[in-house]
Order: sequence, then structure tokens, then C-alpha cells
Amino acid sequence: MDGLRERLAEAGQSHLLQFWNELSPEEQAEMSQDLEGMNFKEINGFFKSAMETSSQTKQEKVDSRMEPVPREVLGSVTRDRDSLKDWEKEGLRCIAQNKVAVLLLAGGQGTRLGVSYPKGMYDVGLPSHKTLFQIQAERILKLQQLAEQQNNAKCCIPWYIMTSGRTMESTKEYFSKHNYFGLSQGDVVFFQQGMLPAMDYNGKIILESKGKLSMAPDGNGGLYRALGTQKIIEDMERRGISCIHVYCVDNILVKVADPAFVGFCALKGADCGAKVVEKTNPTEAVGVVCKVDGRYQVVEYSEITLATAQRRSTDGRLMFNAGNVANHFFSLAFLRDIVNIHEPQLQHHVAQKKIPYVDTQGQLIKPDKPNGIKMEKFVFDIFQFAKTFVVYEVLREDEFSPLKNADSQDGKDNPTTARHSLMSLHHRWVLNAGGHFIDENGTRVPAIPSLKDGTDLPIKCEISPLVSYGGEGLEGLVKGREFRPTLVIDKQGLHELVKNGL
Amino acid sequence: MDGLRERLAEAGQSHLLQFWNELSPEEQAEMSQDLEGMNFKEINGFFKSAMETSSQTKQEKVDSRMEPVPREVLGSVTRDRDSLKDWEKEGLRCIAQNKVAVLLLAGGQGTRLGVSYPKGMYDVGLPSHKTLFQIQAERILKLQQLAEQQNNAKCCIPWYIMTSGRTMESTKEYFSKHNYFGLSQGDVVFFQQGMLPAMDYNGKIILESKGKLSMAPDGNGGLYRALGTQKIIEDMERRGISCIHVYCVDNILVKVADPAFVGFCALKGADCGAKVVEKTNPTEAVGVVCKVDGRYQVVEYSEITLATAQRRSTDGRLMFNAGNVANHFFSLAFLRDIVNIHEPQLQHHVAQKKIPYVDTQGQLIKPDKPNGIKMEKFVFDIFQFAKTFVVYEVLREDEFSPLKNADSQDGKDNPTTARHSLMSLHHRWVLNAGGHFIDENGTRVPAIPSLKDGTDLPIKCEISPLVSYGGEGLEGLVKGREFRPTLVIDKQGLHELVKNGL
Repeated sequence: MDGLRERLAEAGQSHLLQFWNELSPEEQAEMSQDLEGMNFKEINGFFKSAMETSSQTKQEKVDSRMEPVPREVLGSVTRDRDSLKDWEKEGLRCIAQNKVAVLLLAGGQGTRLGVSYPKGMYDVGLPSHKTLFQIQAERILKLQQLAEQQNNAKCCIPWYIMTSGRTMESTKEYFSKHNYFGLSQGDVVFFQQGMLPAMDYNGKIILESKGKLSMAPDGNGGLYRALGTQKIIEDMERRGISCIHVYCVDNILVKVADPAFVGFCALKGADCGAKVVEKTNPTEAVGVVCKVDGRYQVVEYSEITLATAQRRSTDGRLMFNAGNVANHFFSLAFLRDIVNIHEPQLQHHVAQKKIPYVDTQGQLIKPDKPNGIKMEKFVFDIFQFAKTFVVYEVLREDEFSPLKNADSQDGKDNPTTARHSLMSLHHRWVLNAGGHFIDENGTRVPAIPSLKDGTDLPIKCEISPLVSYGGEGLEGLVKGREFRPTLVIDKQGLHELVKNGL
Repeated sequence: MDGLRERLAEAGQSHLLQFWNELSPEEQAEMSQDLEGMNFKEINGFFKSAMETSSQTKQEKVDSRMEPVPREVLGSVTRDRDSLKDWEKEGLRCIAQNKVAVLLLAGGQGTRLGVSYPKGMYDVGLPSHKTLFQIQAERILKLQQLAEQQNNAKCCIPWYIMTSGRTMESTKEYFSKHNYFGLSQGDVVFFQQGMLPAMDYNGKIILESKGKLSMAPDGNGGLYRALGTQKIIEDMERRGISCIHVYCVDNILVKVADPAFVGFCALKGADCGAKVVEKTNPTEAVGVVCKVDGRYQVVEYSEITLATAQRRSTDGRLMFNAGNVANHFFSLAFLRDIVNIHEPQLQHHVAQKKIPYVDTQGQLIKPDKPNGIKMEKFVFDIFQFAKTFVVYEVLREDEFSPLKNADSQDGKDNPTTARHSLMSLHHRWVLNAGGHFIDENGTRVPAIPSLKDGTDLPIKCEISPLVSYGGEGLEGLVKGREFRPTLVIDKQGLHELVKNGL
């Protein structure tokens, strides 16, 4: 204990032991274990740099230094339709050569969603009741098949899953219980991002109870440190990986290892690429990919003035319209340099939060104003180091519908919107493959369903990723046929879940 | 009675008198008055043509005949920014010359909104609690001022308000009670659109009670017949009107008599123009302005296949992206020809509805499936007769937010979205005029407010139309100043409605 006390005193964090004598022996053991593992000098250093960077950033206006993404680094599914097939083919070739890995950011805590388990285990209420993890696993399985068919070679897409201290155990258990959804266990690699304490504005670590520090994951940019400390880069090297697709767990539409995106980046020789969706409303709360002082970065919506957000190109589009969706491509060589060279130089961002704390009287206080900070790095902080950066624009309705919040009135990005997005996409797949939907009277339903009482009720339709990764291969099943929703298509075939005895 | 009985028998509508003997003398008097006023032959004719047209339309696919709006007839606030000032100036000149009238379509019944009074009397809960009618009236007043200032000439924008049988009395009373919101009574002209009975699929008029026919307004295209029968065209001629801006009551952002739109149409020598917003998602439920067989028309979302809805131009935009918002320009000469020549040839559209009815046993039945039709004409049915048609594209977030539904979970186009749209626009006006907002701690709020719990909470800000029509003239009031929301700016000045004692 003496060594610890000394370290805490040196770091100005002695207050953490204020209630030590009130703790039970078990609580004391747990707390001293937590404290032993922490590098207070480093944490204080993070705090200092983060606060300095944060106050500098506030004074500088980034607006005058922003430039839009030049057309030549942009690939677009709507503007480069002729190239799409080639990109996809190249992506499938890379996959067939076992060069492509996917990396899932799943360390978040789902606080806003209001669940205590990892977000990937959430069931948004699809007919199949598949969770986000299962949907993603099945997309990987299907994509392996497609790559094998195209290239006549058995292949594997390893799946790296970054969890945090709070989500690791339950995530692993969940995958094990479900036999990795058909993937081989050895190709699903879990690793853990770091945690950092919450601190008050004076740099004092906050106690969430008398014997426990307030800890939080170090942001999705904690990825890069974790890749090093947990030897993930080495694992990728051993497997011969050269392209990594990084994405966030909460997007129900995510095209895991999207071959068109991977192929586009590979053909462009990119070391770093960002998938984006078009921002069409100046005040939409989304960060935009752009150049600042000649280097690529994401400028967050809170950093931008309205005048800049409203700027338009001659074609009438917003000038800064490359909406970031946390969906990236990295070459392994690039990631290796990040981990070895650049990561330690990146400052943490400061997020002001309302952090429950124990006051000096030992009372638990739930503040109603921000009272401290969490320190986070962001996954896109490393764009600035790219030598060949590319941007790949996709359609929001096809590829982006994040699950962030619980269902509530006028809500966005919640289980209902996620479910509707997926069913609406699958509805369009069926129509595009030549199928039709009919209503209870046998009348064909228009392709664009009407609003009823102001609520968008999509046709209920779900297609297993094991049947189709991106809408392909459905003609044989649906062409010229009429279906009554709910329509489910899985490996067993077509099912019309017609209710009310119809 | 004998004459009536005979007319009904000839028209195959004798069932309307089935319960005659059960009615009280008052009910009998009322019913016979209703029936006397009706032209059954004409109604039967409408039914026949409407049903024929409807079944033809279903068989024809419109897709192969659709062409997008050519660039040369399109004016766009985002793509033709250099011309905007000129258009606006021309519009204000026309207004100053007393050539411009506005015509409000306010005959709808607000069924989906769930109120029994006219929609224009709805208060969406703004800080001022102004109704849609008041907001529109004040925009007219302000626009008259702006035109007068530019041209040094006193002027007037007459306001024609089309109501229906159900909304006429309460609308008139409401305006009278509020002294026409400062407009002169003689320049607010009410007129009434026609009503048509609901009919079953065999062409029998539906009874909604034993002594009462089920009646509904004849659609917003009922405008053209009403313009003739109620001598509105003559009134316009008398006043020297040459340009008419027609719009729908439910759009809280509507720029009544929008000088830029009017000026654009006038400078292009258009007889007919449609204001549109860009449709960006193929499955958005909005009709699109396009050419069919070489003539302009609105193709409704239910008539279009997904393949067509998904087509894109080389610039990546949807090919059919001119989203109709019921906001039109007509020359008086064009309207006169419509009323005198073309209107009678237009068929009614058939809307299948669930219509409550009295069955042959005298029981009131509320059907759960469509059991009959309402017949409607649409305001855009006349585009096909235009000689010089133009399209004017504006930004949805600046100009279009309709009030259609009651507040409900995941709702669209409801009081909350209308209120938020207006406050968000006014928030942007303040920022663009150099003002700032601060939070309870005195910190400046970012221009793009963040999402809280998934709900878009706009800065609360409302600016009276009497102060600014379209964001102009605010610099003197707000430039360089900081405000705590709620901010209200009206003719009395600035008010910060700060709550909770702050």
C-alpha cells in the first residue's frame, strides 16, 4: 500500500483513498488491484494535453482552412456506376486471396440505448429476431461464399472484435453460446480497448463510489493502442492480411467487408479510405470528411459555423457533404505505422459529461450540469497520416442506419428506425429482383408505400444474409411471384408469415 | 317531392329515400334541400368517367413515357444563386404594380390532424401561439411593405381563400374576429369549392345517416370550377391581377407570394410554374413533376415503379427528383382558359376510402376495408395545358414543412415537426445575421445543435413575419449579440423568454 500511496500523492490523486478505511476487505482488495494497474503519470499527462488541445481548438476557427474532398479521390455509387462491377470484382478477388479482414468497434456501452449488455446483442424486432452480431456474422459467411464462387478458392475473412472491459466477457460468452454463428472460432478474434478514468476540471480522478473509480472506454480511437498492446497487428501479419475494413457495431445496414469499397480502395492504392453518405441539409448533425491545411480529417458538426455548413458548389450540392459514418478502410502497412509511430502523439479529445460522483462527505451526487470530462480518441484521428486517402460515397438508405437511442417519440436512430431501414431495403431487393407484394385483397401494393397516419409502415420483409449479401441471387426465388407480407427468405426457402388467418 | 323522386329514380339513386318516413320534419326539410341542389345526372357522369379513367390508368404503365424536367426550364435556389436577386427584384416589382394575388387552398378537413375546425386555425405551439392563418397574413403584410419600399408605391396583394362547405363559416368568423390580422377586409376574398357525394363501387351514393348523404370536397382541383362559378376570375380581372401564387394551407414555411418564385416565372414568361423540392430518396412518398408524352404533369409516387424511382442522372441525382409541394404559379390568362375551356374535360380521380354508411337495415357501419370512393380533381391536373411551363427548385428546410398528422410516435408532418422546422429556420436567420445563442452557462451553442436522446431539439427562436419575411433586415437587431433561448423577435423588439429564473 505504501508504494501506491506514494504514487497517488506524487500524481495529486490521493483523494482516491479518502474512504479507504470505510471499505470492506473485499472492496479494498478490488480497489487496490484497480489502482495498481493504472499509470497515473500517464493519465495526468493525457489530461494536460487534452485540455490544452481542447482550449486551443475552441479559439481557432477551422472554417477558413477547410477544403472539400476533390472529385479525383472520390468514388461514388451514384456517379461512378460504370465502375461498380470492377470494384466489386477486385474486392472479391482480395477476399478470395485471404487478404481482407474486418474489424468491429464494439466497445461502446449502449448508455443511450438503455441496455446493460453489448449493443451487438440487441434484437431490433425483425421477424427472425436476429441480433446485430448475428446479422454481421452471416454477412461475413455469405461474402466468403461469394468470393469463393467467383475465384474458385476457399477463403476466410477473419473478424477482429474490439470490446471494452465492460463488454468483453458477455460478448465472448454470447458468441460461444451461438457457435460463432457458423464462423470458425479461430477466425473470430476478440481484443479489448483500454479504459480511462473520468476526471473533474482540475484533473482529479472522479470516484463513482467510495471504493470505485469512474472509468470509461478510451474512445473508438482506443483501437490503435489496443492493436499494439494486444498484438493484433502481428496476428494480421501472420494471416497475410493486407486490407482491413473497420466499422461500428450499431449500423444495421453495414456491408461488412464491402467488396466494392475494398476493391475501390485497393485499385486506388489507398492506405486509408472513408465511406461517407451525402449530407444534404446544412444543419444535419453529422461530421464531414474534408481537408484542413491540406490534410484529411473529419470536422465535427459542432466545430463548424452555419455559413460554412451552408456553402454550396456550383452543382448546388453542399460543399462539405461527405458525411462520416464510422466505416473505414486501412492497409495493414498504414495501421502498422499508426500503431508504432503516430498513435502516441495523438491527443485525447475532451467530452464534457455529467458524471455521478461521491463528494467529500461520501454522498453520491448526480449532477445536472457537466462536472467533468471523459477522454477519448477517435477512430478518424489518423486520417491526417494517410499518404493516399480516398473517399467512397454510398446511399444512406442502402447502407447506413445506426442504432443509438431507445424508442421514443420523434426519435431517430432507434430500434424502430433500424428495423424499418432493413425491411425497406429488403423490400426493394425483392422488387428489383422482379417480385411483387400484394395486400389483403390481393391487390399489388405500390413500390412506394403510402404513409398511414403519418407513420411510415414499410412492407415487412426480411432476407437472411445467408441468402443474399447485397440483393444478389434473388431472381430465381422471387421473379414474377406475388407475396403477402410478412415475407421471410432464409436458407430453408420462402415463408409468408400471414397473420389473422388470411 | 314527386319531381325529386323521379329525378332520383332516373339516376338510379332512389335508395337515398329509403328511410324518408323515419325522418323528423326538420330532417326531411334538410334532406330535401340537400337533394334539390344536386345534379344527379352530372354526378353519375363523373362517376362513370372517373372509374373508367382509373381502371385505364392502372393498366398503363406511365414509366416508359416519363421524361425528367429539362435543365432549361428549371430555376434553382442552389444552382442559380447569381440570378436570385434579379428574380426577387422582379417579383417585388410585380407586387408593387398590384399584379400579384395569392390563392390559398384551405378546403381540406384536417381529418388526419384530428381537429374539427379548419387547419389554418391550428396553433402548432410556437412561443407566439400564432396560427397558420395569422403567420400567412403577416407574411403578406410584410411583403407589401417590402415591395412598397423597393418601388416607392403603395400596393396590395389580394388574398383569395378557398374554403369548403365545412370550413367556410368558421374561417370567415375567425378572420373577422381577428380583424383580418391587419389586412383590409376587402382584399381578403373567401370563396367555396364544391362538394361531391361519396359513392359505392356500383355508383350508388352513400348515406352517412338515414337523412344525410356522405359528402366531401371535390379535391384541391375543385379550385378551377369554383373560380368560375364564384366569379373569382372576374374579381381578379377587375383588380388588374396577372400573376397568381397558389399554395396549400398546411405548409408552415410557405413563402406566400414568394417574390423570387413570382419573378422567376414572370421573367421566363411562364403561364404555369411549380415550386419543387429535391427528392433524394427513391422511396420517398412524394409526387414528382416530369414530362409524360411531352406534357408536364405530376406523377404520384404510387404510380411509379421502383426501377423508375431509382433512375439517376450522370450527376448522381435521382432523374425524377422534382418533388411536388402544392405550390404553383399561374398567369391569369392561363387560369381563364382553364376555367372556360379545359376544366370541364378533366376527369375526377378516384380515391378508395373506408366510408361509414347506413346499411339497408338502417345500421351505421364503420367498414375496415375500403368500401367506396371519393371523387377529386387535383390542382396540378392542369399542368398539361401550359404553353410555357417552368419549375422552381427550393430547399426543403427553408420552405416546406406540411402539417398533416397529429403528434404520434415516429410521426412525420405533425405539429412538432412543423414547430421545429419554423424555429430551426428562424435560428438560422439569426446566425446568418450575425447573432449567437448561448446556453445556461453562457457558453455559445454550436450552430448545429446536437441530438439529445435522439430527439432533435432546436434552439427556440421565433421571428414575427412583420419583422422579417425571409430572413432580411435582422442585422441591426442581432448582429454581434448573444441570446438565451427562447428568443422572440416581434414588432415590439427582442424578448428573451428565459425560464427557471435564469
